[in-house]
Amino acid sequence: MRSGISFTRRAVFALAVAGLAACAQITPVADPLPSWKEGAAKDAIVQFVRKTTDAASPQFVPPAERVATFDQDGTLWVEQPMYAQVMFAFDRVKEVVKAQPALAAEEPFKTVLSGDRAAIGRLGEADVIKLVVASQSGLTIEAFRELAGNWATTARHPKYQRPYTELAYLPMLEVLKYLRYNGYRTVIVTGGGQEFVRGFAEAVYGVPPEQVVGTMLKVDYAVRDGTTTMTNAPAVFFVNDKAGKPVGINMVIGRRPQAAFGNSDGDQQMLEWTTGGTGARLGMLVLHDDAAREFAYGPATGLPDSKVGTFTQALYDEARSKGWTVISVRNDWKRVFAFD
Amino acid sequence: MRSGISFTRRAVFALAVAGLAACAQITPVADPLPSWKEGAAKDAIVQFVRKTTDAASPQFVPPAERVATFDQDGTLWVEQPMYAQVMFAFDRVKEVVKAQPALAAEEPFKTVLSGDRAAIGRLGEADVIKLVVASQSGLTIEAFRELAGNWATTARHPKYQRPYTELAYLPMLEVLKYLRYNGYRTVIVTGGGQEFVRGFAEAVYGVPPEQVVGTMLKVDYAVRDGTTTMTNAPAVFFVNDKAGKPVGINMVIGRRPQAAFGNSDGDQQMLEWTTGGTGARLGMLVLHDDAAREFAYGPATGLPDSKVGTFTQALYDEARSKGWTVISVRNDWKRVFAFD
Repeated sequence: MRSGISFTRRAVFALAVAGLAACAQITPVADPLPSWKEGAAKDAIVQFVRKTTDAASPQFVPPAERVATFDQDGTLWVEQPMYAQVMFAFDRVKEVVKAQPALAAEEPFKTVLSGDRAAIGRLGEADVIKLVVASQSGLTIEAFRELAGNWATTARHPKYQRPYTELAYLPMLEVLKYLRYNGYRTVIVTGGGQEFVRGFAEAVYGVPPEQVVGTMLKVDYAVRDGTTTMTNAPAVFFVNDKAGKPVGINMVIGRRPQAAFGNSDGDQQMLEWTTGGTGARLGMLVLHDDAAREFAYGPATGLPDSKVGTFTQALYDEARSKGWTVISVRNDWKRVFAFD
Repeated sequence: MRSGISFTRRAVFALAVAGLAACAQITPVADPLPSWKEGAAKDAIVQFVRKTTDAASPQFVPPAERVATFDQDGTLWVEQPMYAQVMFAFDRVKEVVKAQPALAAEEPFKTVLSGDRAAIGRLGEADVIKLVVASQSGLTIEAFRELAGNWATTARHPKYQRPYTELAYLPMLEVLKYLRYNGYRTVIVTGGGQEFVRGFAEAVYGVPPEQVVGTMLKVDYAVRDGTTTMTNAPAVFFVNDKAGKPVGINMVIGRRPQAAFGNSDGDQQMLEWTTGGTGARLGMLVLHDDAAREFAYGPATGLPDSKVGTFTQALYDEARSKGWTVISVRNDWKRVFAFD
């Protein structure tokens, strides 16, 4: 019952498939991670990908289930001397106070506007959260993402005097691409704001909005003058940090990741949950031990602690006992940034 | 500087691409929506797909941005005489009370266990929510999804005496496939439980967990005896209904959909937000007006109202004024179910 056309179709299709298969076989195997030094960290990544993507492997993972999660601050880009979103909130204070003048007399806005660096340095977590919430509330989702994207392109980092878009770690950008090339969805799972990171995630990391899980403000939907709007309200809805990270991943992705990358106590539960699954799992932690090229901080470095991104000794010990791989910026990365 | 191998690769690749292109051109154009009668509803879908996927169209939408959202109950499958999840919760009451015997003396559990149909029929929304929450709290995400999946395969619908997995509307299954074939992600956006629907969405609709947005319970992450667990807590975290639907879509997908399908007041804001965007947008509402093959209900049918899935006259008028297409089960669908 097959017509000549069907036969032709099948023949052409078979030829096309054979052609593509031939292509795949003769592609030269280039190093997918050129900014990584040879060693345990690079090996762990490459072996994980081989084990989970080779159809003949007992630990093969079907493409639909391939999910790798990445903390952002300190894992994908620089988090010192402060989280980018806090820098952004500081930069936004003048605009916020212009829109709501009464805030100028209130803390922590008053302190930030005073420019008194010592006093600003003493602001606590609750103050910082207030600033972050104020920096986005009242704005529509679209307007806020645009603002965040513009900020990442234009604000200058105090140490590097470069925009944040250039401060993504080159070795981690290679990991993102390598995993995606191998059928993994690369999901950013950040304690930072979901909409803040969505503002630049596609441009900086190639990660689309549906693969960004973050801390969420309450969002209000309304129709105003016939126009539908989604607006950030001044209230935190979900904190995507520590035990919130597995919960956030489940909410947005609905699957236990196969691999997770972090750098602090905030990522501990994400790594536990990821590596607690069956089959091949990969847990990795970036240790910032390179003061020359980047920053050196956290008890596990043997160097002075810092207020952000705490890689405690306890986390280091857990990594050892659970077989998570610690990535040393100093020893495992040939280059840290694309501009190096 | 190109080697012979590179030349061969490129030649083979060109051949493969040409072969695939030839395939695409000579594929016979089969009707992608065979269960739909010719008419305005079917036309609206086909024209929308053409306008948004033809690269030469001024309303072309890049594949990454192609998102279509679907309410579940009453849009993708039967919601009468009660939502599936309420049926499930009723079926679970005995198990729930076995686990927590004190509940047997409490309402609404007492009434449900009494079997008094009249009294059960008088239960209010708050009672039903209590039953739904009790039917899943305390269970891990994995265990609950499995339970939901098994229930959908085994429970019998009172009218059809068939499992719910057979009660998906065949014309809507065709729309899901047709849209996916054309590069759309088909996202279920349900007032029902996100984890409940994830339990069968892949099997029934071909929709993976990351494309199910629903009402969420609070979820607790914990490590118990060295095992990582994610457990439903007895508290509603997010209600994905009415104005919650655009908010839920933004949370999980982060994009305004190009197309949205619903059937009730609960879908109004999702359709408003979807069709409020620029370019080609599609809003469709299923009107249940076929008592013989399915059910007939809602004021817009001119038939008696029902407690579930209210398609009010006001929604009908809004659909007319905004150019949303109303799908009449009686007039637009040749077949309602695969078993018809």
